[in-house]
Amino acid sequence: MVDAGGTGRRAAIVEAAARDFDRDGYETASIAGIARGAGVSQGALHRLFPTKRSLALAVIDEQNARTFAAMSSTDPSPIAMLIQASRGIADLLMSDVVVRAGIRISLEHGVLAGQTSSFYEQWIAGVVDVFRLAVASGEVQTTVSAEALGATLVPYFTGVQLVSNVRSGRADLLPAVATMWEVLVHAVAERPHRERLLGVVSATFG
Amino acid sequence: MVDAGGTGRRAAIVEAAARDFDRDGYETASIAGIARGAGVSQGALHRLFPTKRSLALAVIDEQNARTFAAMSSTDPSPIAMLIQASRGIADLLMSDVVVRAGIRISLEHGVLAGQTSSFYEQWIAGVVDVFRLAVASGEVQTTVSAEALGATLVPYFTGVQLVSNVRSGRADLLPAVATMWEVLVHAVAERPHRERLLGVVSATFG
Repeated sequence: MVDAGGTGRRAAIVEAAARDFDRDGYETASIAGIARGAGVSQGALHRLFPTKRSLALAVIDEQNARTFAAMSSTDPSPIAMLIQASRGIADLLMSDVVVRAGIRISLEHGVLAGQTSSFYEQWIAGVVDVFRLAVASGEVQTTVSAEALGATLVPYFTGVQLVSNVRSGRADLLPAVATMWEVLVHAVAERPHRERLLGVVSATFG
Repeated sequence: MVDAGGTGRRAAIVEAAARDFDRDGYETASIAGIARGAGVSQGALHRLFPTKRSLALAVIDEQNARTFAAMSSTDPSPIAMLIQASRGIADLLMSDVVVRAGIRISLEHGVLAGQTSSFYEQWIAGVVDVFRLAVASGEVQTTVSAEALGATLVPYFTGVQLVSNVRSGRADLLPAVATMWEVLVHAVAERPHRERLLGVVSATFG
C-alpha cells in the first residue's frame, strides 16, 4: 500500500516536472513550483528526488521508455516499421508532455549532457539495427551505409520536430515528418520497394 | 569618435552576451555577468540594451547576418552553392560563439519565439529559392517540390548540428553534414548531376 502510494506520487511528480520543464526549460523550472504542481510538499519531493538534476533524469528516462515503446510496430517491412514508429513518436510529441519535456531538456546542453548523449546513442543504435535488417531484406540500397543512415535519421527527425515546434507549435509536424520520409525513401529504397514505401508514408501520415 | 567607441562597445557586449548564452542558456545568463565579460558597467550596458531580451535579439540578429553572409558562394550550380554554404555555416558553428549562441537561444522556445520563427521562415525561403533554381536548371527532380525541400533541409541541418553537439561537442559535425548531403543528393539530384554533386560533397567535407 505504502509502495503503491509512493509510485503514484512519484509519477505525479515526474508529470509535474515535465509540465514545468516543457513550458519553462530546465534552468527556470523550480522545485517549489514542481512540488506545487504535483500537490506534494517540497519535503516529500526531496525524499524522492534530492536534486533538480535527479528529477530531470527521471523525466528523460520516462521519455526514453515511452519513445522506445512507440517503436513496437510489427510490420514485416523494416522501413515500414520505422515509418510507423516515427508516427507514434510524433503523436507522443503532440500529446505527451513527458516526451516533449524530455526531448527539450535533453538538448539544453550542459548539466544533462552525459545522460542525453547516451539516449541518442541508444536511439541511433536501434535505428541502425532496423536499417541493417532493411539492407539484408533488400529493401534498402547500400549507397549510404546502415550506420550512416541511422546516425542521420535521428538528427533529421529531431530537427524536423524542433523546427516544427518553433514555426507552428507542431501544427505542421505530421506533413513535415512525411516529407522527411519521402526524401529518405527516394534516397535509399531499392527500386522495387519505392512505390510501396511511399504508399506507407502517405497511409501513415496522409 | 564617440560613435566608434559606441560601436566597439556594442560589439563587445554582443560577444560577451553570446559567450554567456552559449554556455548557460538564455534564462541562466545574467546582465551582471555579461557586463563583466564585456568590461563595461551595468549602467553602460543598460543604455544600449535595456532588457536581456533586447540583448538576445541583438545576438540573434548578428547570428542571422553572419549565417546569411556564409551563403555567398558563387558556384554556378545551385546545389553546389548550397553544399558550400552549409560548410560555411558548419565552420561558423565550430568557431563563432555568436552563431552558436544565436541558434541555441533561438530554439529555447518562449520569450524569443516570434523572432526565431521569422529567422527560420527567412532561412527556408532562401533555400527554397535555391531549390527552384536547381529545378529550373535541371539539377533537381520535382518528385519532392522545391518548397518541401527547402522546408525539410533547414530542419535537417538544424538537427544534425544539434545532435552532433550533444554527441560529440560538434567533433563529428563535418562528416554528419556530408551524410546529410549524400542522402539529399541521392534523393533529388537528376541522374546526370548525381556523380558531380557527390564529388562536390566529398570535396567540400572530405
